[in-house]
Amino acid sequence: MTANVYHYDVIVIGAGHAGTEAAAAAARLGAKTALLTTNLDTVGQMSCNPAIGGVAKGQIVREVDAMGGLMGEAIDATGIQFRMLNLRKGPAMHSPRAQADKRAYQSHIKLRIESQDNLDLRQETVEDLITESVDGRTRIVGIKVRGDAVYRAGAVVLTTGTFLQAIMHTGTSQTAGGRGGEGTTSGISGALDRLNFEVDRFKTGTPPRINARTIDYSKLDEQPGDVDPQPFSFLTGKLNVEQVSCHITYTNDAVHELIRANLDRAPMYSGQINSRGPRYCPSIEDKVVRFADKSQHQLFLEPEGHDTQEVYVNGISTSLPRDVQDQMFRMIVGLENASIMRYGYAVEYDFCPPTQLWPHLEAKTVDRLFFAGQINGTTGYEEAAGQGLIAGANAALTVAGKPTWVPTRDQAYIGVLVDDLVTAGTDEPYRMFTSRAEYRLLLRQDNADRRLTADADKLGLITAHRRDTFADKLLQIDKAIAILKEARIERTAGDVYLRRPEIDWPAICALIPELNSIDPFAAEQVLHDVKYAGYINRQKMDVEKQHRLAGKKIPPSFDYQKISSLRNEAREKLSKVRPLSLDQAKRISGITPADIALVMAHLDH
Amino acid sequence: MTANVYHYDVIVIGAGHAGTEAAAAAARLGAKTALLTTNLDTVGQMSCNPAIGGVAKGQIVREVDAMGGLMGEAIDATGIQFRMLNLRKGPAMHSPRAQADKRAYQSHIKLRIESQDNLDLRQETVEDLITESVDGRTRIVGIKVRGDAVYRAGAVVLTTGTFLQAIMHTGTSQTAGGRGGEGTTSGISGALDRLNFEVDRFKTGTPPRINARTIDYSKLDEQPGDVDPQPFSFLTGKLNVEQVSCHITYTNDAVHELIRANLDRAPMYSGQINSRGPRYCPSIEDKVVRFADKSQHQLFLEPEGHDTQEVYVNGISTSLPRDVQDQMFRMIVGLENASIMRYGYAVEYDFCPPTQLWPHLEAKTVDRLFFAGQINGTTGYEEAAGQGLIAGANAALTVAGKPTWVPTRDQAYIGVLVDDLVTAGTDEPYRMFTSRAEYRLLLRQDNADRRLTADADKLGLITAHRRDTFADKLLQIDKAIAILKEARIERTAGDVYLRRPEIDWPAICALIPELNSIDPFAAEQVLHDVKYAGYINRQKMDVEKQHRLAGKKIPPSFDYQKISSLRNEAREKLSKVRPLSLDQAKRISGITPADIALVMAHLDH
Repeated sequence: MTANVYHYDVIVIGAGHAGTEAAAAAARLGAKTALLTTNLDTVGQMSCNPAIGGVAKGQIVREVDAMGGLMGEAIDATGIQFRMLNLRKGPAMHSPRAQADKRAYQSHIKLRIESQDNLDLRQETVEDLITESVDGRTRIVGIKVRGDAVYRAGAVVLTTGTFLQAIMHTGTSQTAGGRGGEGTTSGISGALDRLNFEVDRFKTGTPPRINARTIDYSKLDEQPGDVDPQPFSFLTGKLNVEQVSCHITYTNDAVHELIRANLDRAPMYSGQINSRGPRYCPSIEDKVVRFADKSQHQLFLEPEGHDTQEVYVNGISTSLPRDVQDQMFRMIVGLENASIMRYGYAVEYDFCPPTQLWPHLEAKTVDRLFFAGQINGTTGYEEAAGQGLIAGANAALTVAGKPTWVPTRDQAYIGVLVDDLVTAGTDEPYRMFTSRAEYRLLLRQDNADRRLTADADKLGLITAHRRDTFADKLLQIDKAIAILKEARIERTAGDVYLRRPEIDWPAICALIPELNSIDPFAAEQVLHDVKYAGYINRQKMDVEKQHRLAGKKIPPSFDYQKISSLRNEAREKLSKVRPLSLDQAKRISGITPADIALVMAHLDH
Repeated sequence: MTANVYHYDVIVIGAGHAGTEAAAAAARLGAKTALLTTNLDTVGQMSCNPAIGGVAKGQIVREVDAMGGLMGEAIDATGIQFRMLNLRKGPAMHSPRAQADKRAYQSHIKLRIESQDNLDLRQETVEDLITESVDGRTRIVGIKVRGDAVYRAGAVVLTTGTFLQAIMHTGTSQTAGGRGGEGTTSGISGALDRLNFEVDRFKTGTPPRINARTIDYSKLDEQPGDVDPQPFSFLTGKLNVEQVSCHITYTNDAVHELIRANLDRAPMYSGQINSRGPRYCPSIEDKVVRFADKSQHQLFLEPEGHDTQEVYVNGISTSLPRDVQDQMFRMIVGLENASIMRYGYAVEYDFCPPTQLWPHLEAKTVDRLFFAGQINGTTGYEEAAGQGLIAGANAALTVAGKPTWVPTRDQAYIGVLVDDLVTAGTDEPYRMFTSRAEYRLLLRQDNADRRLTADADKLGLITAHRRDTFADKLLQIDKAIAILKEARIERTAGDVYLRRPEIDWPAICALIPELNSIDPFAAEQVLHDVKYAGYINRQKMDVEKQHRLAGKKIPPSFDYQKISSLRNEAREKLSKVRPLSLDQAKRISGITPADIALVMAHLDH
């Protein structure tokens, strides 16, 4: 007998960076939503480094914000150091990054969730998924939680992070658990198995945390924040923040020698861990082996907040035994007396290869079941948040009987992310890079609102305040363009004159004082629009071409068996991925133009 | 092979209210100290209600502060509502109480610990205790932790809270774990068993937490903080705090009816839980059964902080099944639509009856092993903190080869607490009350510094700043007394005049303007000293008498078998408790004046 049944439109399991965005997005769309987590005190927890953003990742945060997500406003409210990376490169590479006060960030996210209409945040441990057969298809209809209770729901979003069948490693010591001091989640693994999901295994790692009181800062290089810190959210005007510095030190030959001498005790090299970790966030033992000729690696000391002495040692993620971790620090300049508060560890966990999902992140074989975050094989808070927003919004749209929505590759890094995942899958934890985007001059951090806010508004994802703020900015841009086109400098139109390399915004304002009235965020848009008009137009033409191909839709149920002339490999891969357009089909690895031509011919029948 | 060995003077296991005070006290005394906890993110966590102080408990916080402890300054820095209870009663009953911002409190305590010299805070899971035979006695020499490491130490303090063999109950659902979302500690239980400690079982409980957004405050009574909030710490001058209100509502007959109808599903009544809980903090099902004639019970809604919507529903602690918890709220005025974020639960845990300890909280059978907090059968953050400070200080004193120290019953509630525990033990979770103190007019919240700061200074527990602050206050008191004795009002000396019931401090200041220069905290002392001189002197005479009896020491190894004329019951009880003075012997339940006379006769031999 089950005494307790709760009814929701959308249930989100897990309250990390994916889960909180998913739940908030579903609730903003009006779905009655429950966000369930095993421990309410870890909502929005930064399990790894206390920072948000970075190259390509900062752009994702801006996109999440442009669609009404939480992450941008949260980091603006709780950041303790802000930097715009790559300012010496072109605007496509400009990337915001910030250090967070880890506890404050978490509290901020939790408060936003608690305050969201249509959303119930509840401490629950999920034990099983409940499915039924509807019209001959498998559909998720609810979940079972510990304590003899059932949640019935129109859709379920799974964001389990590193907690599925998790094992933590430090040297030969192995502990079940997805994060230091916490447990693991097993009921869901059993359910995924029963539902015939393909499950694979990844690993990731985290460095030791040390006590600031035991660091000799006088020996280290200081890295302060920007003098004029820039916000992540399009709703944050001016940041008013007491910034702290990070510090830099380096490993050295002695440290590398120590690591090499202990490789047989490193789980990644002893055979204790077989699963793959994030290529671009390697452990220190990995770096020492793979870059054997390098005599030092940079370590970046990140304070975990205003109110703590804990310091995150970025660059020295490790699962080496604790005595090796102790000894390493003795040999590093400035850290000779460092007191380790938490040892580094690696964690292995289950993920579901994301080619099992439609682009809107619903499972192909189980209707109404959505996946977001590390369970899709990604790494990174920002990648998780982006997927969470998409999964949560589409869960709500599906329950409401509305069409699903995903941004395109030329519209958002999140579009690239989702398309890469469902089309190509990933054989190592997937992280975003600017190089993954073919239209990166379009996908700038500064124009995320112009790319996404109108679409988000149509879906119902944003507030009136955001809509008005955005409309004001568009008016400002139009006004500035009009002023520029009208003005004449040495008989040259203002917009043409602005293209000159030596002319920046202050310079043009000096020549056309009317422009001083333009809001700086709008001015930045105008500047980029005008300066890079040539490049941007070329990319836009590419996009047009692409869209024509993307416009060739393939029905989800298309039967590749009936194309008898199709190569076996192509038939297999296309049947597995089930691309929704010729454009997507083209991006599947191993699919040739000839295969595409054959499919196109059959589509035209 | 054990690769990792760390060496410390004092190791404290557990970083709750007892453990943090113990570690900080040991470190202040110069002992090289390690504080170990399974999860660094829960240091100083308020597992139950978000409040510090209360009747008799507030006095303990002031005592902890007077000895340089953390709790007073922490709540002053993070409190969100302050009230002095019982202001209409005499000064012995005045008791400070405050609501805390739960997360901020925890962060504050963690930062204090991280910043303390001689103290390393480390995330470790303890697996075993290591003992050796030294001079024919069992002595603890270290501990084993997960990950193949050993800590050697001169002394170990155990503060395991509710985590020993913990089981949480909500209805018939049972989960291993000492707190929602966290695990349990089992290695230590095995060690205590092996060392032949008597272990018993208590239970405690916690109420549901609900979302403020779903409460109809318009229907509730508001309880604001004091207009002139008073600090807990003798180092805090004026509190500058943005106060929030609590709110009050009530259960009713319908709720009680519902509970009665579901008693067979309540773990406490179904036989699922047999252990005893705190008598004065009963569950709602307990109240309904024990006070069957009451038609309502008060519920006190305590906000958990500035940055959260979680609300603690004080008064409705329960382990009833979740459907009953859901239904109860539907019937309570103002909470009809309350959304439960965490369900209430009961937790059963192991404790070690404290008659196995010497008054300085060292185990009688295992040298250098100290116990503090809930493992001694107590309940309450303040009781835990007081014991922690005593245990930690004595661990450090013992390692340094110095005499141990405990406050006497006439010196501190903490003295009463420790003496009650080791002399009488407890058959239910022990909570402090003013009625437990025979000299409560001496043990006022306002004079804790005058009772304890000088002794703490001699031990080395306090900073120079505290010493100077205290010395200044004593000078102010002396000065005020001198002014009073000198002054004449209608030919009456000022101090005599002040005894008149209608004369308060402002009144005497109006008559003797010189007194306006006296600091308010010093003035309060002078006022009480003068007004209650009669009562206070009488209690002091009682204390003198008591001290004469207490002065009759009994050697710890005294052999009661050799007093052949002693009754069997007395011989058994005295042999078990091994009182250190005739005074303590007298307080053992069942020991008669005749027994005392016999022991005294043998001592005089």
